[in-house]
Amino acid sequence: MRTFADISVSLDGYVAGPAPSLEEPLGRGGEQLHGWAFRLAAWRRPHGLDGGEDGPEARWVEEIAERTGAYVMGRRMFSGGDGPWDDDPNSTGWWGDEPPFHAPVFVVTHHARPPLELTGTTFTFVTDGVAAALAQARDAAGEGDVQVSGGADVIRQAIALGRVDELQLHTAPVVLGGGTALLDGVAPEALEIVETIGTPQATHVRYRITKTHS
Amino acid sequence: MRTFADISVSLDGYVAGPAPSLEEPLGRGGEQLHGWAFRLAAWRRPHGLDGGEDGPEARWVEEIAERTGAYVMGRRMFSGGDGPWDDDPNSTGWWGDEPPFHAPVFVVTHHARPPLELTGTTFTFVTDGVAAALAQARDAAGEGDVQVSGGADVIRQAIALGRVDELQLHTAPVVLGGGTALLDGVAPEALEIVETIGTPQATHVRYRITKTHS
Repeated sequence: MRTFADISVSLDGYVAGPAPSLEEPLGRGGEQLHGWAFRLAAWRRPHGLDGGEDGPEARWVEEIAERTGAYVMGRRMFSGGDGPWDDDPNSTGWWGDEPPFHAPVFVVTHHARPPLELTGTTFTFVTDGVAAALAQARDAAGEGDVQVSGGADVIRQAIALGRVDELQLHTAPVVLGGGTALLDGVAPEALEIVETIGTPQATHVRYRITKTHS
Repeated sequence: MRTFADISVSLDGYVAGPAPSLEEPLGRGGEQLHGWAFRLAAWRRPHGLDGGEDGPEARWVEEIAERTGAYVMGRRMFSGGDGPWDDDPNSTGWWGDEPPFHAPVFVVTHHARPPLELTGTTFTFVTDGVAAALAQARDAAGEGDVQVSGGADVIRQAIALGRVDELQLHTAPVVLGGGTALLDGVAPEALEIVETIGTPQATHVRYRITKTHS
């Protein structure tokens, strides 16, 4: 019953490149951050895609799905980026009719709307902040873990609230030169490295956050 | 006969913490970046220190010393930080009478001074920029490699000049929250991961820079 954040990041610390748009919700170059996942059968299968390869990091991808009892994400991660579609009360978001989330999702947003049921998941829109979304996700997750999926601002707020036990970073061998910095403004902290998997595609590190704010 | 940069960095991308001083030349919290090295016998021995442990990353430390035919570093890495001692024409720098560099060192500086011979090395002060220092180091290195040791600005300039073939990053499980960012302002680039060693102390990744500036 832990809470973990899991996100792909560039070598220079960005989770999205510059100038995100509806066409490029991850910004310029941002797709490259996820190349390590796209190639894995373990990632493609739940996203409705055929083929793909195996690798030592596939175990993490499977574990992440298995352990997650509920998700917390930001509005832009639900909608696919800033824009007028954000205000569409009937939008089903970026993820299509069969989203890859097989557990309840709590979306932090300023736009109140009723829960949205899609195949395999329900998106609940939480308008009173990250702490409230985390609490609702905790209740919904049961014996499972809560996954804070992004974006960077939601992860940073959850860390600042002292509510993230583990941080899983997938660092791609890419310099984006700008964009959305993951750890910008996070207070000084020492973490523990729990596990590392290095492949030619990315460096996967699981950190335990030991709550030693200095 | 390659040129490589080798440096320790925080999880949030800083090679030194905030507010560096003579007492804390690596800034607030910056010493933690090097904890992985301090504990290794392979690092302590050439720094004149007893004891220490072994580990899979010790091989890298030994290789780095063996392959380095010449070093390039910035003025502050020679002197131990900004301050009046920088202008002392007789300063022997931060590293004591027996510096851990057993090959010629080329210091990028604005202060001209004659070469400084110490046990095992000669510091040559280069006043016409990073490219000139790299060229002199190349000549001096013979069959060896040139190591760009830091600081961040010298490494960034060497990367921008297209003169760095390999980047070796030792990422410590520490968030510094500010300081000197290593890759700030480096142009977007895709690298190749050559080798990864993960330990509880740090994540060591060797990248090949493939010069695909976009």
